[in-house]
Amino acid sequence: MTTEPSSSTNDYANDPAFVLHRGGKLEVRSTVPVRNAEDLSLAYTPGVARVCTAIAEHPELAYDYTWTSKVVAVVTDGTAVLGLGDIGPAASMPVMEGKALLFKQFADVDSVPIALDCTDTEAIIETVIRLAPSFGGINLEDISAPRCFEIEDRLREALDIPVFHDDQHGTAIVALAALRNAARLIGKPLSELRGVVAGAGASGVAVSRILLNAGFGDIAVSDSKGLIYEGRDGLNPIKQALARDTNKAGLKGSTEEALKGADVFIGLSGSTVREESIATMAADAIVFALSNPTPEVHPDVARRHAKVVATGRSDFPNQINNVLAFPGIFRGALDVRAHSITEGMKLAAAEALAAVVGDDLSADYVIPSPFDDRVAPAVIAAVSEQARREGVNRI
Amino acid sequence: MTTEPSSSTNDYANDPAFVLHRGGKLEVRSTVPVRNAEDLSLAYTPGVARVCTAIAEHPELAYDYTWTSKVVAVVTDGTAVLGLGDIGPAASMPVMEGKALLFKQFADVDSVPIALDCTDTEAIIETVIRLAPSFGGINLEDISAPRCFEIEDRLREALDIPVFHDDQHGTAIVALAALRNAARLIGKPLSELRGVVAGAGASGVAVSRILLNAGFGDIAVSDSKGLIYEGRDGLNPIKQALARDTNKAGLKGSTEEALKGADVFIGLSGSTVREESIATMAADAIVFALSNPTPEVHPDVARRHAKVVATGRSDFPNQINNVLAFPGIFRGALDVRAHSITEGMKLAAAEALAAVVGDDLSADYVIPSPFDDRVAPAVIAAVSEQARREGVNRI
Repeated sequence: MTTEPSSSTNDYANDPAFVLHRGGKLEVRSTVPVRNAEDLSLAYTPGVARVCTAIAEHPELAYDYTWTSKVVAVVTDGTAVLGLGDIGPAASMPVMEGKALLFKQFADVDSVPIALDCTDTEAIIETVIRLAPSFGGINLEDISAPRCFEIEDRLREALDIPVFHDDQHGTAIVALAALRNAARLIGKPLSELRGVVAGAGASGVAVSRILLNAGFGDIAVSDSKGLIYEGRDGLNPIKQALARDTNKAGLKGSTEEALKGADVFIGLSGSTVREESIATMAADAIVFALSNPTPEVHPDVARRHAKVVATGRSDFPNQINNVLAFPGIFRGALDVRAHSITEGMKLAAAEALAAVVGDDLSADYVIPSPFDDRVAPAVIAAVSEQARREGVNRI
Repeated sequence: MTTEPSSSTNDYANDPAFVLHRGGKLEVRSTVPVRNAEDLSLAYTPGVARVCTAIAEHPELAYDYTWTSKVVAVVTDGTAVLGLGDIGPAASMPVMEGKALLFKQFADVDSVPIALDCTDTEAIIETVIRLAPSFGGINLEDISAPRCFEIEDRLREALDIPVFHDDQHGTAIVALAALRNAARLIGKPLSELRGVVAGAGASGVAVSRILLNAGFGDIAVSDSKGLIYEGRDGLNPIKQALARDTNKAGLKGSTEEALKGADVFIGLSGSTVREESIATMAADAIVFALSNPTPEVHPDVARRHAKVVATGRSDFPNQINNVLAFPGIFRGALDVRAHSITEGMKLAAAEALAAVVGDDLSADYVIPSPFDDRVAPAVIAAVSEQARREGVNRI
């Protein structure tokens, strides 16, 4: 059953990432015994027929007697993979497998990578709807904006299981958690903060939305053409909606200009921000330079002017890492067989995540480590409880 | 993370099949360590980006560095599940999970159940094509005839990975293996045998086809309206082709009439055949009454008149069980990264499977047990070798 390595791979023999990836990172295993004919007569024919018949008569039994109650599809089209962009479905698989590892490791969620060979919005929506009976939840991943917004919205409407685009909401939840703690540290309520979000892609839009829902004071959002405001030419519908709901101050011009006097900067754009602009922010400024691998401003530089600095990187304090959210979010939703992951569940997750920091709060500790084993239980409990509170649970 | 059982399931607490199925039968696990930040930096960002980039540049590397090289999608639409018929995708999941257990147990093939919420031929084909980058092979399962034929044919044409409808070819391969040994026992070459196949659904058509390809003398195939012959009214294209290629004798009328003087009966119809009809078969007759759970004729009755009797049941000798074929077929194909599973590979699998019986051949032992651990290695080797011989291998 073994095969010789193909010659093309010899170049990679000295890179530990390639060595580790050899043969992939996942396997499917049985959770029941399959030792002999008697085992098979229960797990397969004839015993399995009784279980199938029961589910056909009472569809809700699928939750009890199939793995769909605990398995999530990690669905991508490979168009916005990490910082690599549109590398296609096959090349995206190592990231999707990695996501499945994180699901399992951090919240015991089983998941299956599904990299689709189509990028058309309608095709993706229709394909996921067809796949849905096999899964208990859909984690959308690395699908480029603005298609990702419509795909998530339409799937949420069409399906009666959790649908969650992690690039949007995972980032948003963790950023909000860190921001809650940063605000607590500087002693200001969220409602009095004014912020600038650089980037109106998947994560920029979702972070802006969750900040508004959490009662943030005012946010100005920018894209590659500068700040987004009502009446700006050529805005797509997503940005038109942002223009309506953000930038109460009516700022125009560049991201850097808007930083003058701002309390918060959140970078999700892949662009750079100069030290001089950070220096113009309000006292006790909060800088989240989240682009990876190169933050919008180096955290050591930002710290000269800001009270709290966070990045997306593990080699600096305050890493805004999605893995703090998505495993527990799905586990919490699956545990109560939620119909969906609501805005309230996301806000509850952010609050629970922030609360893990507790009295240890400091400028270098506004968000817990991914390896803090209090994180997942806190998020799971908050999400399950909120689902019950809103009545979107089945059990 | 535990949930209370829903009240509707209490009825099932005393059925061991339901007890075993609780929570499903599968899980996804990591094959690499995920203990700390260093592990994650290889299995996920930033290390994974190097692997993705390499695959984007050299797509064939997906075989080496993702699990697609070893994972098969078990795809159904839930329209022809076991003997239960069209029970829909959700209710089919226990069977698909069971199939995944068998894949793993018998040939270490990882597989994922995909029960589709669509039954339109075009929709199924297009969905599987979109899913294909995530998998190394496609096992079609429990899709009703005649749609299953076109779906398999079109997918084989469209995809460059093995596509195999097990209800057709798994049954066909195992039946041919048993028939080879039965013919050896009675001392007649396949080319001199005349047979009747009752049933022109997925397995009836595939068994007839593989017998023709193996050089069987003559077969008459029947459906619910009787024997299929050229010129019969209302034949669909699949049956028209069968009419052309089978029934050289030009028999008309019923299955039972055709049994007179026949050497072989293969039942795949769910109908019944009377003892009187079996009694009219040739000396040293071979009766494969394969319908489950009720064979076309009870094996004890058939044995009064036939030399060799086989069924689909595990509680009688000579069980024609697909699990003797499909795990090894896919393992053999995946091991050489075959582009497809050819007719030659199927015939080679049947021959290898028959050969396992060797000198122990007897009327009650024309096919090995599913738990004979010589089976999978023999099938795997034969399939891989034949793939190399035909040049459909990649390595």
